[in-house]
Amino acid sequence: MNQIHTPTPKDQSAFKDLDAYWRAANYVSVGQIFLWDNPLLRRPLALADVKPMLLGHWGTTPGQNFIYVHLNRVIKAYDLDMIYVSGPGHGGPAVVGNTYLEGSYSEVYPEISRDESGLRKLFRQFSFPGGIPSHASPECPGSIHEGGELGYSLSHSFGAVFDNPELIVACVVGDGEAETGPLATAWHSNKFLDPATDGAVLPILHLNGYKIANPTVLARITHEELEQFFRGCGWTPIFVEGHEPVQMHALMAAALDQAVQEIRRFQCQAREHGQMERPRWPMIVLNSPKGWTGPKEVDGEPNEGNFRSHQVPLHPAEHAGHLKLLEDWLLSYRPDELFDEHGGLRPELAALAPSGLRRMGANPHANGGQLLRDLKMPDYREYAAQVPAPGVPGVGDTRVLGPFLRDVARLNDAERNFRILGPDETVSNGLAAVFETTNRQWNAATAPDDKWLAPQGRVMEMLSEHQCEGWLEGYLLTGRHGLFNCYEAFIHIVDSMFNQHAKWLNVSADLPWRRKIASLNYLLASHVWRQDHNGFTHQDPGFIDLVVNKSAEVVRVYLPPDANCLLSVMDHCLRSRHYVNVVIAGKHPAPQWLTMDAAVAHCAAGIGIWEWASNESADGEAGAEPDVVMACCGDVPTLETLAAVSILREALPDLRVRVVNVVDLMKLQPPSEHPHGLSDEGFDALFTRDKPVIFAFHAYPWLIHRLTYRRTNHKNIHVRGYKEEGTITTPFDMTVLNDLDRFHLVMDAIDRLPQTGAEGANLKVRLAAKLEEHKRHIRTYGQDMPEIRNWRW
Amino acid sequence: MNQIHTPTPKDQSAFKDLDAYWRAANYVSVGQIFLWDNPLLRRPLALADVKPMLLGHWGTTPGQNFIYVHLNRVIKAYDLDMIYVSGPGHGGPAVVGNTYLEGSYSEVYPEISRDESGLRKLFRQFSFPGGIPSHASPECPGSIHEGGELGYSLSHSFGAVFDNPELIVACVVGDGEAETGPLATAWHSNKFLDPATDGAVLPILHLNGYKIANPTVLARITHEELEQFFRGCGWTPIFVEGHEPVQMHALMAAALDQAVQEIRRFQCQAREHGQMERPRWPMIVLNSPKGWTGPKEVDGEPNEGNFRSHQVPLHPAEHAGHLKLLEDWLLSYRPDELFDEHGGLRPELAALAPSGLRRMGANPHANGGQLLRDLKMPDYREYAAQVPAPGVPGVGDTRVLGPFLRDVARLNDAERNFRILGPDETVSNGLAAVFETTNRQWNAATAPDDKWLAPQGRVMEMLSEHQCEGWLEGYLLTGRHGLFNCYEAFIHIVDSMFNQHAKWLNVSADLPWRRKIASLNYLLASHVWRQDHNGFTHQDPGFIDLVVNKSAEVVRVYLPPDANCLLSVMDHCLRSRHYVNVVIAGKHPAPQWLTMDAAVAHCAAGIGIWEWASNESADGEAGAEPDVVMACCGDVPTLETLAAVSILREALPDLRVRVVNVVDLMKLQPPSEHPHGLSDEGFDALFTRDKPVIFAFHAYPWLIHRLTYRRTNHKNIHVRGYKEEGTITTPFDMTVLNDLDRFHLVMDAIDRLPQTGAEGANLKVRLAAKLEEHKRHIRTYGQDMPEIRNWRW
Repeated sequence: MNQIHTPTPKDQSAFKDLDAYWRAANYVSVGQIFLWDNPLLRRPLALADVKPMLLGHWGTTPGQNFIYVHLNRVIKAYDLDMIYVSGPGHGGPAVVGNTYLEGSYSEVYPEISRDESGLRKLFRQFSFPGGIPSHASPECPGSIHEGGELGYSLSHSFGAVFDNPELIVACVVGDGEAETGPLATAWHSNKFLDPATDGAVLPILHLNGYKIANPTVLARITHEELEQFFRGCGWTPIFVEGHEPVQMHALMAAALDQAVQEIRRFQCQAREHGQMERPRWPMIVLNSPKGWTGPKEVDGEPNEGNFRSHQVPLHPAEHAGHLKLLEDWLLSYRPDELFDEHGGLRPELAALAPSGLRRMGANPHANGGQLLRDLKMPDYREYAAQVPAPGVPGVGDTRVLGPFLRDVARLNDAERNFRILGPDETVSNGLAAVFETTNRQWNAATAPDDKWLAPQGRVMEMLSEHQCEGWLEGYLLTGRHGLFNCYEAFIHIVDSMFNQHAKWLNVSADLPWRRKIASLNYLLASHVWRQDHNGFTHQDPGFIDLVVNKSAEVVRVYLPPDANCLLSVMDHCLRSRHYVNVVIAGKHPAPQWLTMDAAVAHCAAGIGIWEWASNESADGEAGAEPDVVMACCGDVPTLETLAAVSILREALPDLRVRVVNVVDLMKLQPPSEHPHGLSDEGFDALFTRDKPVIFAFHAYPWLIHRLTYRRTNHKNIHVRGYKEEGTITTPFDMTVLNDLDRFHLVMDAIDRLPQTGAEGANLKVRLAAKLEEHKRHIRTYGQDMPEIRNWRW
Repeated sequence: MNQIHTPTPKDQSAFKDLDAYWRAANYVSVGQIFLWDNPLLRRPLALADVKPMLLGHWGTTPGQNFIYVHLNRVIKAYDLDMIYVSGPGHGGPAVVGNTYLEGSYSEVYPEISRDESGLRKLFRQFSFPGGIPSHASPECPGSIHEGGELGYSLSHSFGAVFDNPELIVACVVGDGEAETGPLATAWHSNKFLDPATDGAVLPILHLNGYKIANPTVLARITHEELEQFFRGCGWTPIFVEGHEPVQMHALMAAALDQAVQEIRRFQCQAREHGQMERPRWPMIVLNSPKGWTGPKEVDGEPNEGNFRSHQVPLHPAEHAGHLKLLEDWLLSYRPDELFDEHGGLRPELAALAPSGLRRMGANPHANGGQLLRDLKMPDYREYAAQVPAPGVPGVGDTRVLGPFLRDVARLNDAERNFRILGPDETVSNGLAAVFETTNRQWNAATAPDDKWLAPQGRVMEMLSEHQCEGWLEGYLLTGRHGLFNCYEAFIHIVDSMFNQHAKWLNVSADLPWRRKIASLNYLLASHVWRQDHNGFTHQDPGFIDLVVNKSAEVVRVYLPPDANCLLSVMDHCLRSRHYVNVVIAGKHPAPQWLTMDAAVAHCAAGIGIWEWASNESADGEAGAEPDVVMACCGDVPTLETLAAVSILREALPDLRVRVVNVVDLMKLQPPSEHPHGLSDEGFDALFTRDKPVIFAFHAYPWLIHRLTYRRTNHKNIHVRGYKEEGTITTPFDMTVLNDLDRFHLVMDAIDRLPQTGAEGANLKVRLAAKLEEHKRHIRTYGQDMPEIRNWRW
């Protein structure tokens, strides 16, 4: 098919059918928002036909219907493998309506049949209790992006096309959404796309001029500025502007032909001719009225082409004239021409949609679990740190993980289904080993001194946590695997994106037709306790407080105490499905505790007594309970706890001390709250029913209380953790500032062990002196005292 | 002064001094990163002169020194009122060094004197335990922006210049930072600036090419694209490109002259000639090497002009040749020419800096509390909802607040020191009344049907929570007042920005020279329980979980149960200083409980027994304890609790019920944890020591446990709240899905009150039937049963 600029008579007739299809989509959209009954308007519209409560968003819907219908045309014309991402996803009626018209909806939900009865159900269920949400939610086939919280459509779309060379994602970006930060930087994703091995994103800016109650910025700058903006972002904009349907159909068809041909040309240049220059990919600016084809005016105020069309333009129950307006509006689409006597879409129209898996509602990329293949995994045991005895020095836990991840990347290189993302922190986080086998994917200019940049690579780094998260979500949702490595403090930048993804997983897990996808894995390194270069701004371990608010079905939190545990945990996470896994690990040299075999057993249990560090049975009494439980979770708290135990055992050898280490944080919750939760008996067996527990925790201490408040021995659990004290200082001083250091932990224990008597009191005095010595020392040397670098005091 | 393009001999000499000043700034920057002693290199550099631990960021520092020095020149030349915002704030040595050289640092910290001894202390304290952070932190005079977490420099800068017509903020944007979402959208802030009544932002893109370990995107696109990008964003870019200092001084001076003259011209056009066209403000692209003037090569790898210069380029203790490299580097600045025999900056150089309050380290705008004036407040009591009896219908709590905020805006209109920000939700959140007196500030194009848009207005709306937050922070930090209204779920978008602002408040509160600023007030409306149009994606009450992680000194959380309480709380928040206040309120019609007098008393206490709803003394027994405490926090939980109490008292009249309502969430914590915390006696007096407490809470239920786990009666506190169950449904059904509804609350109470016997059991059966009826009803009618709209069952 050639490029179309002026519609020929044949085109005019093609557009006539296309226009009818668009009217059908608009009709079923309005029907979803308004109708309870009388779905085909076979009798005059009565108030009883209108839903008692009207919810939804009309404004964006007709424009999205227009786009969808035109995409159907090019999918057929060029046999495209295409999915649709709806940035303004609250225009749910558009995606639901179009997947209904093309038939994919009824295949997933047979009760929503393609006849009058199904149409009635389709209308009733929309935004109705017990029905479906008003957004492009997981319930909607073809959707990988709900669009409830705005800003991520373009990042998701790029994530979807990475390593999917045949896929084109048509990404509708609302001009409201375009004002968000994440979307604004996502235009630059094109510098990270390889035209040879990745697919293409076709952004369609849906410039309908208004948000909820305001005009949009991009609609109120000059045409010249808008064009410069997109060219500056590396795109070639094609403008489709107007409101008269016949003309707009011709313009949109021409624009899409041009865009598809350009995309194919760039791909061909790269794939067949090895052309390396970064393409200036096409994008479309669709400048059309908000609430297009809706009521021109309601109660004397403009509606079509105005912000007032954003939600529900008419309220027949409250306003006398609205019922008639609604009937006129519905009839303006001429439903008799669109649906046959059974309520099915007329065959000549139905034939306009693609068929089978080419339908955007049936494309398997939008139900990524269908395409998901297991990762080829190296044996993580082979990367083990050698631990001949507990406390041997390590090189940095993430630095041990690096070679394992390198080989995950290597083993799956041919499959092209694994990526590591990070905001320019992969090296800083200790994972430089991955660059022994792969590169950072980069399609902007290069310079001679660049390191590890290449057109193709398994690592993607842009200084935008939003982009990393959005790309990875899009990649996972289309059936691939990945890992996001990030400074712990700055993962809060994507709190809200995590929230939305967790909600997506939560809802989609209950939809049998949605296949499970690979887990979203966070590796949070450069954590709160080791921010030597940066200090207070880089110290925040609170992401997990947020994570545990989400459904227990989908969230997992791991704090491996050493490198071998980290290997075991990461292997588990990369194999898991449909979770969000948060793994927190250190990158600095730190003592190692467990051999690989011990680590495997410990991580499988998720929590356990470290008998080699405990002396609870020192007196030979079998089954005796300890005097005190020293619990720890996280690498630095584990070090300080073991150092504290070392002090206790040396100074008070009669004391029976138990060390409990927690890898899987969710073990602490009751099983009623989280599937990983220990039984109460199991918990009591570890933490006793009545002995003091000194718990050294990586993050904010109250999280431990929140997880354990229902446990028998909760009242005796004393937690130390980060309490928002920090600055530029030494690693050990960070623990001192937050009372998490070995000396404080010992003093905490003694305070709860009156039986230690004078010996205990003396020890406290010596430790207090030691703390004073520490404070003098660091002010002079800027470093920790040599003996504090070790775990044995 | 005329525009300079080719340096004249006189200019050459001016640049010679300027260059010397720049060398001095670079010298004290390198000194801060490396030197423990020998600050003036009066003897050969020895290893003992180098700090034992080297921390900091060199890469960005020389470029920022270059900018600062040139800004000093134009401040003097044009008598500018200017402050400096350092986007790459981790280049702390630059801002610390320059404020030291100009003298403002020593005025704040007299012990860091302007002589050799002071220089030694300046060097030692940097990034050293007990010293100062490595960033442009609150400790640094002249800073309103720490730059630890990247992305907010431009938003902060715009916030600072709103309503400050004489102020220019020179905002250095790192090219790494420019990749973040918040920064990417902040370029569009220029559509919201009024050239007549606001000041100007002069962005300086610090295009030094590299992030931590990668090139930057903006450095690797074509010059043409970069120029188009900025023009498309509405700016007029001026390029300063090169590395040879003499030439760069001339270019930079010319660029700054041009920029300042353009700014003045635009301001003059608007202010004196009423020119309304949106200015294409100037901005500067400074393309200079990363680590400029640093070591060219280290260990055979390029350093200057490369990512390797990002942090500390040399490690003399570990690498043999580095000591000599460091000495050569320091000497390359020719310190003998810069400092006199006492170690003071030579007078002819010192004279290049501005004096007094024109120094950027002494400008009062950067210590906003100095400029802060109290808001003129209307008497909030006059806006009271009339509550002749508890339970009367209300119009929506935020709708009652609207007129009060309108009059705050009106009363302070002449002072121009109050703004309301929101991402296009001010009307949706029920605050439309403010538009009776003011408008949305908007400087892009307008159309005839626009509503409430004007060049000047107290309301600012851009669909970017990041922008709203960043603008407001900048506005507050420069001594003004404001309010951010936002959908509750989407405030998570700025979690990390809240974190950083809370940290800033926390640190600055301990600096006596920093005056306290107005609180950052969040009004979170459109909350979790009423998301009828949007459903699950719009339901997340977890922001307060994050908030309470921050220092208790700076965070406050309020959940007013009705409109009069909301008025009282908001009046308090707007008068408060140096806090983050989170206020959560409803916008939908809901019952009202307290008269204004009662609301004032209740809010002053923050928590209290609602005797009018309780019957604990029904039997006339003075001082008797209730059988059960029904506690509530939040508007919807309060409604459900009172409805539950109504059921209980009707069905089980002998039961003694106490109703406790919580407005100030922090009352629940022990006083050791939060200054608002109730004493244990006070807590016991409300919640008893041993009676069952059924607590209906607005947010995630475990937050109540976290706050109360140390309280005597904690084990009997049973909390209901949002447990991540939601979809499109009715308001009442939302409470049912989360077991927070009146029926569940009654059943919870009965389960804990065995004394209710058969009567209680019967009531449970009736309520279970009622719940079934409810489920049938909404599936049919899409609405709650009529009797459930009321609080009395």
